[in-house]
Amino acid sequence: MIQANDLKSWQQKAQAQTEILLAHLMPSENDVPEKLHEAMRYVTLGGGKRLRPLLVLAASELGEADQDAVGQAMAAIEMLHVYSLVHDDMPAMDNDSLRRGKPTCHVKYGEATALLVGDALQTQAFDVICRPTALPAARQLQMAATLARASGSLGMAGGQAVDLDNVGKAMTQAALEQMHSLKTGALIRAAVALGALACPDLGETDLARLDGYAQKLGLAFQVIDDVLDCEADTATLGKTAGKDADNDKPTYVKLMGLAEARAYAETLVADAVAQIEPFGEKAAHLRQLAEFVTARKN
Amino acid sequence: MIQANDLKSWQQKAQAQTEILLAHLMPSENDVPEKLHEAMRYVTLGGGKRLRPLLVLAASELGEADQDAVGQAMAAIEMLHVYSLVHDDMPAMDNDSLRRGKPTCHVKYGEATALLVGDALQTQAFDVICRPTALPAARQLQMAATLARASGSLGMAGGQAVDLDNVGKAMTQAALEQMHSLKTGALIRAAVALGALACPDLGETDLARLDGYAQKLGLAFQVIDDVLDCEADTATLGKTAGKDADNDKPTYVKLMGLAEARAYAETLVADAVAQIEPFGEKAAHLRQLAEFVTARKN
Repeated sequence: MIQANDLKSWQQKAQAQTEILLAHLMPSENDVPEKLHEAMRYVTLGGGKRLRPLLVLAASELGEADQDAVGQAMAAIEMLHVYSLVHDDMPAMDNDSLRRGKPTCHVKYGEATALLVGDALQTQAFDVICRPTALPAARQLQMAATLARASGSLGMAGGQAVDLDNVGKAMTQAALEQMHSLKTGALIRAAVALGALACPDLGETDLARLDGYAQKLGLAFQVIDDVLDCEADTATLGKTAGKDADNDKPTYVKLMGLAEARAYAETLVADAVAQIEPFGEKAAHLRQLAEFVTARKN
Repeated sequence: MIQANDLKSWQQKAQAQTEILLAHLMPSENDVPEKLHEAMRYVTLGGGKRLRPLLVLAASELGEADQDAVGQAMAAIEMLHVYSLVHDDMPAMDNDSLRRGKPTCHVKYGEATALLVGDALQTQAFDVICRPTALPAARQLQMAATLARASGSLGMAGGQAVDLDNVGKAMTQAALEQMHSLKTGALIRAAVALGALACPDLGETDLARLDGYAQKLGLAFQVIDDVLDCEADTATLGKTAGKDADNDKPTYVKLMGLAEARAYAETLVADAVAQIEPFGEKAAHLRQLAEFVTARKN
């Protein structure tokens, strides 16, 4: 039986591993163009919950994973996530000045550089995930394709566009869930899929079960994001609190109220955990991450 | 012996094929989010010289190419090129209002959408190039990796950053060439490499020879771009003429004068053509494209 302390220490170890992977898989700030590389490292290193890399790692524990492929996927998915934050914070989008407790990229380096930082981080993600490993090349190609499909106009970027189109509009719960299933859900599902794809011994049935888990988890994550945005203060959050309300964006809290939104997230997490029951103790870290999603304070 | 007329007709046919591939390999404007997909199609379809896809196709004629892999590479590299134009035209960068004879993306759809259009087009490029074909998966993974390496911070995006850092500065010819070898050269080299990689019968020697051609060609292309920016009027160019001079950017024309810049481009094209001599008649279209680069009016 794994204890709570072991799980906490796993999480810290996995976050430290993510940091090392990211530092290693990005060009140095001594490489030309130095300022661009410095800015890429500024936004990527030294912070963040690293939820997506942790999901990759936890899912990879279900089978006989190729560790190089796992490491590449952990770094690549975080780079994609960070690129989306950099562009989302820009004046043309959310115009935010604080992220992970630090000035946002365009505030620190200017808008032109922030644009290029996001662009180059996205490319770096695909550069990293396409590097050959001991995994069969067809399986690795499937990993790269999974990452691309999840983050493009039918995934994360599409969700941003739907979000943009709905500022100031009333949305039904179904429409809100569709938006979030693209905006944050697609990349969370990809994280879990990538961990499993790095295990040649896991098949379609395992992948389908894990996708059920990831879908519920992604939704719970967004509901809690709305709850925290409403409840927390800026210092705890590390980003500007209350900005969704200020921007007149549709949220779960507006739709169903604060207490109900929190209860809904807890139901979703319970559903997610039920999906991975058959994996037994191997899924301990996936369960831990699901519970972390509702317990987190930022 | 291939005649000039045949070559002209090949070029038109290849451009039409590129258009069909792009239309087919992007989500429909009826798919959610509709406005994003409409804008992605607006910037990508209906124009452009299609130099990069034509280079992919011409290089693929040197061997026994897998046609699906060729088509995917043609579409993917053009999507990457167009994403860079969309972001480069934005107010934070060149702030340009005209591209390919039409209003730029942010002028027509707003800045937030233009940001997402560029982002999603880049992702779509990797989505497309990672789709399985009859080519060995390892070779296809190499194609995706080639595209990523050429377009990231050590390639195209890095070149944009160097460009940005040098506005208003005097540059030596060596520094200017290093900047352009990243900014436009890297993607032109990738185009030629992708066409060759789609032929399982072409090996390292062929790839090295082709890369010699592509390096010279990429540089010639940029020199002529500077010449045209200085010589041509906006109507012929389909984009705002004289903008580099206005923006106080370093150019070959400023560095060496107009006539000398044109002569230099012609020398480079002759060098490029010399590199591919050993391929004989199979390289007719690569030769044609090299000559087109100096003869073009926009």
